[in-house]
Amino acid sequence: MKRISMGDGAGGELMHELLSDHIIPFFPKVQTEVPLDSFDDSAVVDDIVFTIDGHTVKPLIFPGGDIGSLSVSGTVNDISVMGAKPLAIALSMILEEGLDIKTLETISKSIGKYSEISGVPVITGDTKVVEQGAADEMIVTTSAIGKRSPYLDDNLRKAGEYRKVKSRWLTDDNIQEGDAIIVSGTLGDHGVSLLSFREGYGFETELQSDVAPLNNLIEQVMKTGGAVSMKDPTRGGFANAINEWSSKSGIGIEIEEHLVPLSETVVSACELLGIDPLAIGNEGKVVIGCVPEMADEIVKTLRTHPLGKNAAVIGYATSKFENVVLKTEIGGHRILEAPVGDPVPRIC
Amino acid sequence: MKRISMGDGAGGELMHELLSDHIIPFFPKVQTEVPLDSFDDSAVVDDIVFTIDGHTVKPLIFPGGDIGSLSVSGTVNDISVMGAKPLAIALSMILEEGLDIKTLETISKSIGKYSEISGVPVITGDTKVVEQGAADEMIVTTSAIGKRSPYLDDNLRKAGEYRKVKSRWLTDDNIQEGDAIIVSGTLGDHGVSLLSFREGYGFETELQSDVAPLNNLIEQVMKTGGAVSMKDPTRGGFANAINEWSSKSGIGIEIEEHLVPLSETVVSACELLGIDPLAIGNEGKVVIGCVPEMADEIVKTLRTHPLGKNAAVIGYATSKFENVVLKTEIGGHRILEAPVGDPVPRIC
Repeated sequence: MKRISMGDGAGGELMHELLSDHIIPFFPKVQTEVPLDSFDDSAVVDDIVFTIDGHTVKPLIFPGGDIGSLSVSGTVNDISVMGAKPLAIALSMILEEGLDIKTLETISKSIGKYSEISGVPVITGDTKVVEQGAADEMIVTTSAIGKRSPYLDDNLRKAGEYRKVKSRWLTDDNIQEGDAIIVSGTLGDHGVSLLSFREGYGFETELQSDVAPLNNLIEQVMKTGGAVSMKDPTRGGFANAINEWSSKSGIGIEIEEHLVPLSETVVSACELLGIDPLAIGNEGKVVIGCVPEMADEIVKTLRTHPLGKNAAVIGYATSKFENVVLKTEIGGHRILEAPVGDPVPRIC
Repeated sequence: MKRISMGDGAGGELMHELLSDHIIPFFPKVQTEVPLDSFDDSAVVDDIVFTIDGHTVKPLIFPGGDIGSLSVSGTVNDISVMGAKPLAIALSMILEEGLDIKTLETISKSIGKYSEISGVPVITGDTKVVEQGAADEMIVTTSAIGKRSPYLDDNLRKAGEYRKVKSRWLTDDNIQEGDAIIVSGTLGDHGVSLLSFREGYGFETELQSDVAPLNNLIEQVMKTGGAVSMKDPTRGGFANAINEWSSKSGIGIEIEEHLVPLSETVVSACELLGIDPLAIGNEGKVVIGCVPEMADEIVKTLRTHPLGKNAAVIGYATSKFENVVLKTEIGGHRILEAPVGDPVPRIC
């Protein structure tokens, strides 16, 4: 008899199988513009963008953030990467009996602060208490709604000057031959700093989580124009995000390994721990696919923003390959697969 | 140092204090039509109705329902009682490592079935896995969005033929002198059957949870017209719901105890267990406030529907009292207070 394992929740292949084999087939099929089984960051119905995320990060408070900033940012980012303007957040908290009220207040303050920073209010909520051992301190689930950004149409029109654009939203299936792949900054910071802090490896003194709401940064990119897809590389990291694009868009993607922004600490830590920085979650980064003609402009826009100062073009979509390949600095190629399980559980 | 106790999550006075003192003050104040601190069933922003609920029911499967039917129905009902048409559900599942896949499939089938019954699709979701002891089998959090029902304006216009109506939605503050209080059926069935099943008291052989999506029933009531407030009496039961109306509307409410529909099993069980059936949660009942002139018509409509066959007018709003009073059959009066804690934890 099969039982749920940690890997099933890792955001990689195993989770995809769990959802596709044991959950989604039992739901009625529905016609919406961006449906459940597209596995996009958010769904779209009647031009309302809608998303939900459960947060089980351990510990609740970590270098650079906490479950409150994580919950607000994660949900705001899932709405924003669709090309939408987040309108409001719904907040559900499951509290374990015995949780210190001071901890709850710290998290609530953080939720308030990130709601203020992002400009997205918490407008409804629910709170439950369970006995000890029925939750680990606190689980925070946030849902958000958004409306089509006023800058999305112009952004897509700009892309359309160079080629036909398929989707009305910045979905995973919108990448075509030649499109540039941009990341907004260094990868792996969140997962590595959290793991290091939790396990006491010491890297967290030089490294913090990147947790941040990206709605303003993304708005600037759309004002520049030419973006066709966006994704926040959380669970499963960049490797998972880019493979989703490749398979849903039906096009190969070549990433130049030496162009990928990585902090020295992340490189050292990942070598020591034997984990791949590209397969570890980020909470304040966005991967952008755009028409190649606009790539430099978009990188320039990103770099003028504090959250995008290490932005770089790191590759291109190409039918030379069928999936995602990493080109090493000396010119070799290796396949960059979506992670199967998860190198670091409970980081989001 | 204060710590969270089970009573803080009970939906009564203690929870109200927890939210008002330790959570909500840290959030930025926002102007929306139905805001967070109105503590209504859902919030309204830009005419989108939005709600969220975390479900921690134990056990996952109980007489008449399971955490899947509960999650879909609860969220659909929270949208519907505002006078809105539910459009879509977002589903977050937290799974405990080691959970039997068959259990997950049973719950997923139930979610699918109730999505089908209510006509409200699951369009987006998130799944996490935590290690053993970090969750109790499975936590399901559902969020839903809705749009103003096409029948709400006519319903309110009908009420407006008899008196001025304050709110554009069926909110808690919309009750006025003379308004009739209707319940759609017997109270206490969900909480009593679940408690009995969990503890092995044996009443569950005659009694099942009432869990059901009420969107269709509520639509029929709005087509009849004259309703001004609706609420699904879940945590804290009818006692909590009616006290919310009384305090937010600033009017006393007199309930005639002998008119309250209660099944014989609930009466026997509550006597034996020393709990108040009016303070225990329901998952398929709606409390309706309406102009008195339309009360009989609304009860007639309810009774023609399978989910409303025991509907009854059970009292009236009256400035004779300042809060909620129960009139006993022999003519005595006693105050019906909102429950402080919770007689039965983890029933929703």
